[in-house]
Amino acid sequence: MATFAARYGDPSAVTSVLNDVLRLQLAHRSVRKFGPQSVTDEELTALIAAAQSAPTSSNLQPWSVIAVRDPSRKARLAELAGAQAFISQAPLFLVWVADLSRAARLAERAEVAVDAVDYLETTIIGFVDTALAAQNAVIAAHSLGLGSVFVGAIRNQPAAVAAELGLPPHTVATFGLAVGTPDPGENAGIKPRLPQGAVLHHETYDAAAADEHIPAYDERLASYNRRFGLAGDWSGRVLGRLRGPSSMAGRHVLRETLSRLGLPSR
Amino acid sequence: MATFAARYGDPSAVTSVLNDVLRLQLAHRSVRKFGPQSVTDEELTALIAAAQSAPTSSNLQPWSVIAVRDPSRKARLAELAGAQAFISQAPLFLVWVADLSRAARLAERAEVAVDAVDYLETTIIGFVDTALAAQNAVIAAHSLGLGSVFVGAIRNQPAAVAAELGLPPHTVATFGLAVGTPDPGENAGIKPRLPQGAVLHHETYDAAAADEHIPAYDERLASYNRRFGLAGDWSGRVLGRLRGPSSMAGRHVLRETLSRLGLPSR
Repeated sequence: MATFAARYGDPSAVTSVLNDVLRLQLAHRSVRKFGPQSVTDEELTALIAAAQSAPTSSNLQPWSVIAVRDPSRKARLAELAGAQAFISQAPLFLVWVADLSRAARLAERAEVAVDAVDYLETTIIGFVDTALAAQNAVIAAHSLGLGSVFVGAIRNQPAAVAAELGLPPHTVATFGLAVGTPDPGENAGIKPRLPQGAVLHHETYDAAAADEHIPAYDERLASYNRRFGLAGDWSGRVLGRLRGPSSMAGRHVLRETLSRLGLPSR
Repeated sequence: MATFAARYGDPSAVTSVLNDVLRLQLAHRSVRKFGPQSVTDEELTALIAAAQSAPTSSNLQPWSVIAVRDPSRKARLAELAGAQAFISQAPLFLVWVADLSRAARLAERAEVAVDAVDYLETTIIGFVDTALAAQNAVIAAHSLGLGSVFVGAIRNQPAAVAAELGLPPHTVATFGLAVGTPDPGENAGIKPRLPQGAVLHHETYDAAAADEHIPAYDERLASYNRRFGLAGDWSGRVLGRLRGPSSMAGRHVLRETLSRLGLPSR
C-alpha cells in the first residue's frame, strides 16, 4: 500500500501533494528494537540543532535535554519508566526536560522575581515547547536513518527521575526518547490513524460529523492489530487507557509531584 | 553565514552531519507577513496527514484542528488573540485543540467512565500530543514553500475562543498556527538560539556548565535584535516575560479556565 494509504489503513486514501519531507513524515513509525550501532556525537549534535530550530514561545527556550548513554543509568531509568527493556537496549536515551530553572537562576542572579514560573500556563509552555523541539529531533533522526520512540512513562515517577539525573528545582522530565538504528527484524508497521474527517473541522467544531468516521477506523485498527497478534479496536483501547486513576501508572499524582519539583502550576 | 552557524548566531559553529531535511529544519523561521495566495485544500490535506503521522501517547490521538478561512472569523480570533494583524492577513488560520471530548463521547455511548480525563496528566498529554502533531505540520508547510507562525495568545481568552469555534466540553484551544505564502518583503531572519552547551547535558544536569554559555548568547541575540531595530538581550527579555501575572496577558487564570472547559486538571 502507498504510504499515504497505509497511514490511514485505507487503500482508497490518496494525496496529490507529496515531496520527500512529507514522505518521510507519513512513513514514520515508532522503533522499539535497535541494532548494536551507537549514535555518534555528530548525529546527536544534528538532532539537538534540529530541536533548537523549532519555534518557542517568546524565544524562552524553556527546555533542556539529558543524553544518557551509560548502561547502568539507562537500566535504572528503564526500571523507573515501566521496566521497558528497549530503553536499555537503545544506544542513546534522551530525557527531555521542561526547564524553568534557567530563568529562575537568571532571576536569582539579577535579584528580581519571575513569579510567572508558578502558574500552570508556564508549566504548559514548558511542556509544549519541549514537545515542539523533540518532534523536530524525531524527524531529524528519521532523516539520518535512525529510529526512535517516545517514553511517556518517564512521568510515572518524575521525582525519582529528577534525582537520578540531578535535575534542579523548577524542572520536570516530560518524556524520554529512545534513539538508535532500527533493527530490520522488528515486527512493526505504520499504525493507521483516524480518518482526517474525524480530526479536521472547518470553521467550527462538528462532533457528529467527526465521530461518524470512528466505526470504520475501529475496523481498520482492529485489522492492523490482528496482523501483530493483538486484539481490540481503537475505541476499546481508548476507553481502557482513560478508565481512571488505576489506568494511569501512577501519573494521577502529577500535579502534586510538579508542585514538589518547584512547578506549582497554580 | 551557513545555516547551522546562523542558527546559533556564531560563525564558528559547524556540523558534519547534514541533509535536506536537516537543512529545512535549521533554516526555519516564523513568518508573520503573507502573500495573497491561498492555501489549497490539497495542501491542507498534506499538512494534516503530516500532523497525524506524529507519535501520540497510546495512540489516543487526543487532538482536533479547526481550519479557519472565513475573514470575519479570522478577524474575531485575531482580536481575541492579542489583536495580532497577521492572523487576519494569513489565508489559513489553524486552531489546534487538545481534545478529550472524543473519548468522553465514546464513553457516554458505551456507558462507561473515563475518569482519567479529569487529571492534569491527561491535560498534559493533550497539549503534548497536539504540539507533536502541529510541529509536523509546521515542517510539512515549510517543505511546501509555505510559512507559518504559532500563536500562543489563543490562550489569552480560551473560553471566548471555544464559544467562537463551537468547541465542546473537555477541549481547549492550545495554540493557533497562521499559514500562508511568505511575503518575500518581510524583514526577518533566522533567530539565533542558545549554544548547544546551554541546553544539552550528558548523563546528569550541570547547571553551572550550562549557564556559562549565556553571556555570549546575550551578546549574539542583542546583536541580532539590533539588525531589526530592537533593543535588549535574551536574559532581559526572559526576565520581563516571566516577571509575574502582569506579564502573562491574562493567562495566569488558565487553570480556572481549563476547569470551566471540562478539563479540571486535578
